[in-house]
Amino acid sequence: MAIVVQKYGGSSVGDAEKIKNVARRIAAAKDKGNEVVAVVSAMGDTTDELVELAYSVTDLPGEREFDVLLSTGEIVSSTLLAMALRAMGYEAISLSGAQAGIRTDAAYSRARIVGVDPVRIVKELDKGRIVIVAGFQGITEEMDTTTLGRGGSDTTAVALAVSLGAEVCQIYTDVEGVYTADPRLVPEAKKLAEIGYEEMLELASYGAKVMHPRAVELGELFNMPIMVASSFTDSPGTLIHGGETMEVRNKVTSIAHDLDVAKITVVGVPDRPGIAAAIFEPLAKANISIDTIVQNASINNITDLTFTVAKSQLRKAMEKVGPIAKSIGAGECVSDAKMGKVTIVGTGMQNTPGFAARMFSALSEKGINIQLISTSEIRITCIIDEEGVKDAVKALHRAFELEE
Amino acid sequence: MAIVVQKYGGSSVGDAEKIKNVARRIAAAKDKGNEVVAVVSAMGDTTDELVELAYSVTDLPGEREFDVLLSTGEIVSSTLLAMALRAMGYEAISLSGAQAGIRTDAAYSRARIVGVDPVRIVKELDKGRIVIVAGFQGITEEMDTTTLGRGGSDTTAVALAVSLGAEVCQIYTDVEGVYTADPRLVPEAKKLAEIGYEEMLELASYGAKVMHPRAVELGELFNMPIMVASSFTDSPGTLIHGGETMEVRNKVTSIAHDLDVAKITVVGVPDRPGIAAAIFEPLAKANISIDTIVQNASINNITDLTFTVAKSQLRKAMEKVGPIAKSIGAGECVSDAKMGKVTIVGTGMQNTPGFAARMFSALSEKGINIQLISTSEIRITCIIDEEGVKDAVKALHRAFELEE
Repeated sequence: MAIVVQKYGGSSVGDAEKIKNVARRIAAAKDKGNEVVAVVSAMGDTTDELVELAYSVTDLPGEREFDVLLSTGEIVSSTLLAMALRAMGYEAISLSGAQAGIRTDAAYSRARIVGVDPVRIVKELDKGRIVIVAGFQGITEEMDTTTLGRGGSDTTAVALAVSLGAEVCQIYTDVEGVYTADPRLVPEAKKLAEIGYEEMLELASYGAKVMHPRAVELGELFNMPIMVASSFTDSPGTLIHGGETMEVRNKVTSIAHDLDVAKITVVGVPDRPGIAAAIFEPLAKANISIDTIVQNASINNITDLTFTVAKSQLRKAMEKVGPIAKSIGAGECVSDAKMGKVTIVGTGMQNTPGFAARMFSALSEKGINIQLISTSEIRITCIIDEEGVKDAVKALHRAFELEE
Repeated sequence: MAIVVQKYGGSSVGDAEKIKNVARRIAAAKDKGNEVVAVVSAMGDTTDELVELAYSVTDLPGEREFDVLLSTGEIVSSTLLAMALRAMGYEAISLSGAQAGIRTDAAYSRARIVGVDPVRIVKELDKGRIVIVAGFQGITEEMDTTTLGRGGSDTTAVALAVSLGAEVCQIYTDVEGVYTADPRLVPEAKKLAEIGYEEMLELASYGAKVMHPRAVELGELFNMPIMVASSFTDSPGTLIHGGETMEVRNKVTSIAHDLDVAKITVVGVPDRPGIAAAIFEPLAKANISIDTIVQNASINNITDLTFTVAKSQLRKAMEKVGPIAKSIGAGECVSDAKMGKVTIVGTGMQNTPGFAARMFSALSEKGINIQLISTSEIRITCIIDEEGVKDAVKALHRAFELEE
């Protein structure tokens, strides 16, 4: 019998009716003769409510306690889902991350999976049971509960699929798959039947909310095909895989965008070795994630350094950068919180001329000014004004003929 | 250093402010130089809410899943309490029942503790930490979560106190201790400084809500002194212990009452061997708890059989008893849902004449009719009309001079 690992997100199990709906989907997979393991997130806003509860007690909840607290959300939803299946006449059992053998390091709130011991899962599958696993959580060597941070339940699902030798990991969510652009911005956007790991990684990293990059990376590492589909419809989703067909298409696959971008420019930076480290090391220590960094060509050994951060981190970043700029003899620091990012992702970009030119001219035709550019082998990203993002995505979708 | 085990009930940790209050009390115990282990129940109505959630999904939640679901309530409160202590600058760590080493049988929803392996607790205490344990839960040999049923957190606390060799188990609740009668009925009721295990057991079994009989029994078995006190005041509570002073007082200690009583009489029962079993075995199988049973002396081999059940079980009991009565050739079944119970508890009752007489005359002076009587070595219980209970408790409190 084939083992199928499914994952259902928080919006798919938001209330009793939705839980019953998910139970019916799981039952259908079982009825087809599969051995089914379903990973589940916490119901709807549960995690937010638990966070609020912690902060009602203290501004500084310890990470260890915080993880134990948050892990209860997934335990609740996993038991309810098992109950719903049992009520339908199926043998089902819920397992916590610990019981499912998800072993992690002790980096609370962002733990990494160090191994999976699915002994108990296999034992339950052998009894003919459907196994429901609480996502997003694991256990340390010391038997302490951890949570996996963002994208945690997706990561749990892919890790279990790998360790159980599943044929595919099915991620059920509130969208129908990966599109050529966000359908809310571009109504004519098309659902992709398949996409390569690398392209999906770039899309996820540059604003596509469908899946967290981390789970895609894990899928790529172990070559585990991931099917992303809707938990509310039966339409086929998008298969993320590493198949050969991906590599030869030489074509833009999808447009990602991100509105959570703020820009900081340090003016008049003396261009000498070690200056970048002097600026970015203190930011890294303050847990501020830097995204794109651009440094202009230096004139008279003076340059401008521009980088982007998430909007929520702008204030903290500016507080750090101001004193640093002074200490290295640079000029003022300027910030702009109203930035956005558009990205085209596709295979073979570096070998095929014209992608960049076509992107830039599509944006310029719409009067959109490009402020920063960054590229990879399969991606070109332009930082532009926030207000231009919607038009930019539409224009790029048309320019690369993605509606066809 | 002395080990102190404390337990805080759901009403003591009902919200963030109350959790901080409990944290301060735990900190005070630590400041006195003790090693402190605190067992905690789920916050306020959490357990009821989780029960409701389960029944929103199915009318038949499986026991195993139900236990896992309910156990999250105590995990949440234990983490919040540990956070509150850490915020106050104390090293504190929360442990689940499993981590605390509470091993149980697999009788879900009413599991019995089969052993305690407090290795992890001792390790954390050795590090100077305060240990917060999620009450009401344990783990089976198969590493499945169980709950201990009614009085579960009290039982957890007493079991931990025994296994850790604590000097005393402190149960903090929303009352100040054990009284000579319910102070809401008898304003002049006095708080007892101490009481014996046996008396407390009878009081708890016959309506006093202070503690569940089960935890008292465990305390008696291992001779662990239990201090019951309020979590909201600093007044000394009541010490439940097995000291010698208890045995020689020959005096009524306290009056218990219970309004949750319904009466069923089977009229005209043929008095032959096996008839009681024929009636009560089917009731036991239907999980109906029978309390007092009284059978009148038989006339012409025909007798009346009367017994009491909880009000909530009356309908179910009547549905069972009707057909049974027919099948054994008895007459009709009569029920009365408006019954109550008053109980006097004290040492040496059987050896000291006059207790029963004094009780009956106190009730008769108030015009209260006694319908059934049951006794033990240290207890006399009268079943009376519900409406007479309040007056009965007052009259008995006066008759046995408990206000002095």
